[in-house]
Amino acid sequence: MSTFRVIGTRQRKLDGRDKVTGRTAFASDLRLPGMLAGRILRSPHPHARILRLDVSAAEALPGVQAVVHAGNVRQRPFGYGADNLPLKAGKVRCAGDEVAAVAAEDEETAARALELIEVEYEVLPAVFDPYSALEPGAPLVHDERRDIEGNVSMRWDFEHGDVEAASREAAVVVEGLYSSPLSAPASIETHVCLASFGSEGQLDVWTGVHMVSMYRKALADTLELDWRQITVHQPPIGGSFGGKIDIDPIDFITVLLAARARRPVRIHFSREEEFVGSRVRQPMHIRLRTGADAEGRLLFRDADVVSDNGAYNAWGSHALLVVMQTISSLYRVPNCRVRSQVVYTNKAYGGSVRGFGNPEATFAVESQTEELAEALGMDSIELRLKNANQSGDLTPQGMRITSCGLGQCLETVRRQSGWSERRGRMRALRRGLGAAAYVHVGGGARIYPSDGCGSILRIDEAGRVTLVTGASELGQGSETVLAMVVAEALGVPLGAIRVLNQDTEVKPWDVGAHASRTTFVAGNSARLAALELREKLLETAAEVLEVDAADLELDDGQISVRGSPGRSISYDRVARRRLLRQGGSMLVASTFYDPPTEPQDGRHVGNISAAYGFGAHVAEVEVDLETGLVAVLNLWCAHDVGRALNLAGVEGQIQGGAVMGLGLALTEELGIGDGHVLQPSPREYGMLTARGVPPLHLSVVETLDPEGPFGAKGVGEAGLIPVAAAVANAVADATGCRPRSYPLAPWKLLGWLREAQQPRNRSR
Amino acid sequence: MSTFRVIGTRQRKLDGRDKVTGRTAFASDLRLPGMLAGRILRSPHPHARILRLDVSAAEALPGVQAVVHAGNVRQRPFGYGADNLPLKAGKVRCAGDEVAAVAAEDEETAARALELIEVEYEVLPAVFDPYSALEPGAPLVHDERRDIEGNVSMRWDFEHGDVEAASREAAVVVEGLYSSPLSAPASIETHVCLASFGSEGQLDVWTGVHMVSMYRKALADTLELDWRQITVHQPPIGGSFGGKIDIDPIDFITVLLAARARRPVRIHFSREEEFVGSRVRQPMHIRLRTGADAEGRLLFRDADVVSDNGAYNAWGSHALLVVMQTISSLYRVPNCRVRSQVVYTNKAYGGSVRGFGNPEATFAVESQTEELAEALGMDSIELRLKNANQSGDLTPQGMRITSCGLGQCLETVRRQSGWSERRGRMRALRRGLGAAAYVHVGGGARIYPSDGCGSILRIDEAGRVTLVTGASELGQGSETVLAMVVAEALGVPLGAIRVLNQDTEVKPWDVGAHASRTTFVAGNSARLAALELREKLLETAAEVLEVDAADLELDDGQISVRGSPGRSISYDRVARRRLLRQGGSMLVASTFYDPPTEPQDGRHVGNISAAYGFGAHVAEVEVDLETGLVAVLNLWCAHDVGRALNLAGVEGQIQGGAVMGLGLALTEELGIGDGHVLQPSPREYGMLTARGVPPLHLSVVETLDPEGPFGAKGVGEAGLIPVAAAVANAVADATGCRPRSYPLAPWKLLGWLREAQQPRNRSR
Repeated sequence: MSTFRVIGTRQRKLDGRDKVTGRTAFASDLRLPGMLAGRILRSPHPHARILRLDVSAAEALPGVQAVVHAGNVRQRPFGYGADNLPLKAGKVRCAGDEVAAVAAEDEETAARALELIEVEYEVLPAVFDPYSALEPGAPLVHDERRDIEGNVSMRWDFEHGDVEAASREAAVVVEGLYSSPLSAPASIETHVCLASFGSEGQLDVWTGVHMVSMYRKALADTLELDWRQITVHQPPIGGSFGGKIDIDPIDFITVLLAARARRPVRIHFSREEEFVGSRVRQPMHIRLRTGADAEGRLLFRDADVVSDNGAYNAWGSHALLVVMQTISSLYRVPNCRVRSQVVYTNKAYGGSVRGFGNPEATFAVESQTEELAEALGMDSIELRLKNANQSGDLTPQGMRITSCGLGQCLETVRRQSGWSERRGRMRALRRGLGAAAYVHVGGGARIYPSDGCGSILRIDEAGRVTLVTGASELGQGSETVLAMVVAEALGVPLGAIRVLNQDTEVKPWDVGAHASRTTFVAGNSARLAALELREKLLETAAEVLEVDAADLELDDGQISVRGSPGRSISYDRVARRRLLRQGGSMLVASTFYDPPTEPQDGRHVGNISAAYGFGAHVAEVEVDLETGLVAVLNLWCAHDVGRALNLAGVEGQIQGGAVMGLGLALTEELGIGDGHVLQPSPREYGMLTARGVPPLHLSVVETLDPEGPFGAKGVGEAGLIPVAAAVANAVADATGCRPRSYPLAPWKLLGWLREAQQPRNRSR
Repeated sequence: MSTFRVIGTRQRKLDGRDKVTGRTAFASDLRLPGMLAGRILRSPHPHARILRLDVSAAEALPGVQAVVHAGNVRQRPFGYGADNLPLKAGKVRCAGDEVAAVAAEDEETAARALELIEVEYEVLPAVFDPYSALEPGAPLVHDERRDIEGNVSMRWDFEHGDVEAASREAAVVVEGLYSSPLSAPASIETHVCLASFGSEGQLDVWTGVHMVSMYRKALADTLELDWRQITVHQPPIGGSFGGKIDIDPIDFITVLLAARARRPVRIHFSREEEFVGSRVRQPMHIRLRTGADAEGRLLFRDADVVSDNGAYNAWGSHALLVVMQTISSLYRVPNCRVRSQVVYTNKAYGGSVRGFGNPEATFAVESQTEELAEALGMDSIELRLKNANQSGDLTPQGMRITSCGLGQCLETVRRQSGWSERRGRMRALRRGLGAAAYVHVGGGARIYPSDGCGSILRIDEAGRVTLVTGASELGQGSETVLAMVVAEALGVPLGAIRVLNQDTEVKPWDVGAHASRTTFVAGNSARLAALELREKLLETAAEVLEVDAADLELDDGQISVRGSPGRSISYDRVARRRLLRQGGSMLVASTFYDPPTEPQDGRHVGNISAAYGFGAHVAEVEVDLETGLVAVLNLWCAHDVGRALNLAGVEGQIQGGAVMGLGLALTEELGIGDGHVLQPSPREYGMLTARGVPPLHLSVVETLDPEGPFGAKGVGEAGLIPVAAAVANAVADATGCRPRSYPLAPWKLLGWLREAQQPRNRSR
């Protein structure tokens, strides 16, 4: 069917071999002459007033070049609601809050200097639970904020249709409260920031951030610097999963230290500090009510969401945007109401971890879908198919569904898992099957005036094709897929393409790597640039071959006259002929692609993405009733990816997502005790290892999206979204006991099983 | 007169402060993980057969990771006539020839390993003098070359008109043999090359070369690599003066070592090795005959040139191209004949040192101009003015003289130096005045199918303007002048511009920094890009301000409606308005400028440059007759630079050139004894220090070249060209004794003074 030469093949990552052989230089491998080691002093208290700070002994320690704290730097508040400061002033609001920092000749001196800083705190009552935080008289995390009520930092409300009326009409209504845990992105590479001022005031920063343009702006705004003087360098990133998406106190503090020391400074988080000082996936509590008619047509959804935001508003405060979409738009929901509160607590605060609200909301919606099916006496996949979105739908939030493979994905996992024969029939074996589907933005997400990405594509005299892209490679394989897009659209061999992922001096604008948008947005941008260059190549080839450009074809680097196979010339010779002559010209194309989307309006309506991705999973589990251990035996995953550009990359993303989803479903939770992270180590935190991964059965459904590059849609987060829901549903099938929160820790499961023996009362 | 805001001002180098404060990271500051130290084993003999080479003991030394020699690498000949090899095979032809090399964990181990390499040589008779090399039966440097006669590697012949007939008509004919020494570029930074192979076969090379595109090609061709896989990085260069213009054995050998060791390798020349292993300015012997009519109109020139090329043909073999131009085209010469032989000798071989044939030829022509004036009984400046080229002239070699300030330059230095009153009247004081003029390419020099330069200019959302240029900054100030060109043409503040000078992945094509072409060619390229972006800026501003773009003016970053001063918007806001909106677009322009020139044809005719620079110096000297010491008391320098874009930069170039010229005139000579460099140290070599610099009186003559950017012409080499001739002429004025070679070493001068007492016989 496809006449593509590169698109649709399996290509290993172009940057992979250097990475696995240890040749790649990450940020932590960089050294600048005179570079100092920076360290941050963190609050030991989850909530306290800073009464006195004395850095004189630290400053006096030989080898210390700078000590910074709120009293000796210029800093402005940052974050949504301007509720955060790089170095905290007056009060700390979570354990780990940044109070001071030092830069010294070596790490040991910096560590000793931290011990010499004297801080006197007045410990304040703290609040760790969002429901307690909502109670009258609860300690106020941000008592300085006059613009909010109590601890509610934001509300995200949506209403469509008439939920009350629909509620009265419904034949069946189910209700439940679904909770997700505090978890961590836990990438292999920890946070590193290296900052250096030049003698003319120019600032160079090296960091693993993947929203470099907005990072630069935030750095300038908060530290009152001229952003034209700032260059943000993006060395290869050792994973992020959203943990490095944008700016953090580490970045500001590194720059403040470099400014004060007048030397380059690097801060490099230890593994422990990575858990304590980085953003987390905040817990969510979703009380959901769904009603349907007797035939199983959804009539309404009504949701009350409490987001356990933590101490400050970072990206996590906006995950409610996504929660709302899953509730309103995974299925056809004619009436919908969502009320969400973002609640401050004295804890680690939420960032934009992979999935960003999707797994949490999907857990609620897809757990309830199976409960609803049960109540209706229907098969849950049938119920899903009946209510599934179709191409051409416009959802209550204004999402225009173009390509849509949800039905095909559901049918695929149903068939492959033996659902119809096995579901509900293995309880004796303590085995069960559970399904879950998802909807996700697949064509960018307009969260900023521009959701675009620029490309500058050049063919040099050697025939090397260089793509300077705004996109960020963070291990997800974007460079490989962009090279493939260019190779295909331009018609040259993949080996000729180099993708450059450099600094803000060279990189064009891109809003950043988030929302699974890179293949779609940067891919379209690269494709347009390649098509423009292809025209120029053919134009020059036509001159050389003395034919009309329309009679030429370009394939695998060879330009030939259609029908005259002997008359041909290679693209690199054409590039030389064009460039290396009197009055020559370069083969350069610069393009900018901004997807045809709308920002959401004040009512949260707007076609936020140019395409939507869909998929469905079925999990098979076996539950040990004595220990409470859940073993996932199989996971069937079918994803509508539009078109798989790099089959190996798409499968890798889905597999990686699925494994991350399994970790969330089964083991990952960042425990907090008295406001402190209890297990700041990867092993104790509960990340899965390769041994914990069950057989994954992947199916790629290609719906050929009309707007996507070669029909592709984003797939970066998809794999993890429905996993917890599918596993929980399988546990319910295996045991008759319905989990209402994850991870499915054995002690929790044993508790539920005991409870299930008693009369039904599983509210929170 | 000028309405420019930036052009014509004095701007210190944008990269200057980082350089003088030690922040700039040069190639020698780079470290790669696992980097090895490379060292080269050099021949101790100027001419010998390699009978046996045994590297086994070196290979066995712990810490040695690779040993390379002609017997274990793949290498093809390189250089003009393919007469050179990175690692010599069979024969060595000059002391210092590369025989083998090692890469080891550290410099000490590498040095010890070199000592363990056993080489058995059969010493061959050597030839050091080109006239001896021309004699029948002389030792043959390249006995393997069947395509040449004896030791004559090339001939550069030119004929125009009828020299014989003109010779018969001439009222006066003068003749002399003028010789120039072996000298060295001697930049502060020595040669460094760092090479590293990636795991996919990609090769990264860091080097101070300033013809990066052609370097990459030569590297690939000689080592049989795929040039698409090679990235050449250009760190800041610590001076070159032509010594680093293109590829050298160090580069090939570093790559060969890196390939064999499978580790990054760096070779870093010591100061001594820099003198022994790098290219030199080869000696020239120019026998020149000039005839004029009784009124002083030149009738012919007849030249016989012997270039003492050294052992191999590098760039130096092509300096005859320039020698020919000065002879044929500095003045109006109706009949001209040049015969040049490039002669192999067993010595260090010639590269493309600043001036490249110009100072040597100018010494001959301008010494003889004063002799001719003497013979005619005319003032030499009058004689020059009478024969000076004028705008509109077409010289015998096809050089089209457009802007021409030669007459104005001559008049300026005549007036300023008190020439008319003082010349010939200070002999009692042993003081004298001498003049010399020059012509030089000032608008590129087409030595390759393209003499172009590409630019990619971008304005980002911060208003930062980034110029990615093909040009190379090597300390000459090109980044500063290009930033000024962009600031002026675009209409934004200079501080907003960044010039990027990176690697071949990012840099567009440029033939390289040579022939004083960067301001002209890269400047025109940058200017065109800026004008294109200016249009785009105004287009968007017109939308925002709701006016016609034609009614807008852009000055210092502010776009305003002509006649409505209140209606204005800053350029960076316009950039944001254009980019950060739905369906936005980037402000990017890519341009390529190739000057309107012709390659020389087989007869050496062709308008090789788009403009020609002119100038004149007058030197005042005092000669100590007892010691032979020449003190330069004053140097008046007037240069037609078209337009001075950065006055500080232009003056810096002229001053630097003049000082380099004074070194050549007075002290610099790389002595060779039995084929070995006698003083491989900067102090003994004779470079001037700041204390040796006399008052320099600079005059900038602006002729506003029609093709140059804002009227500018190249000035990078100009300052040094006429110095030796002017000083020698001043010595002749002071003493009556005419130097026919330089440097004017005291022992030589004393000899000439003694000889001058005897009957005239100063032939060689």
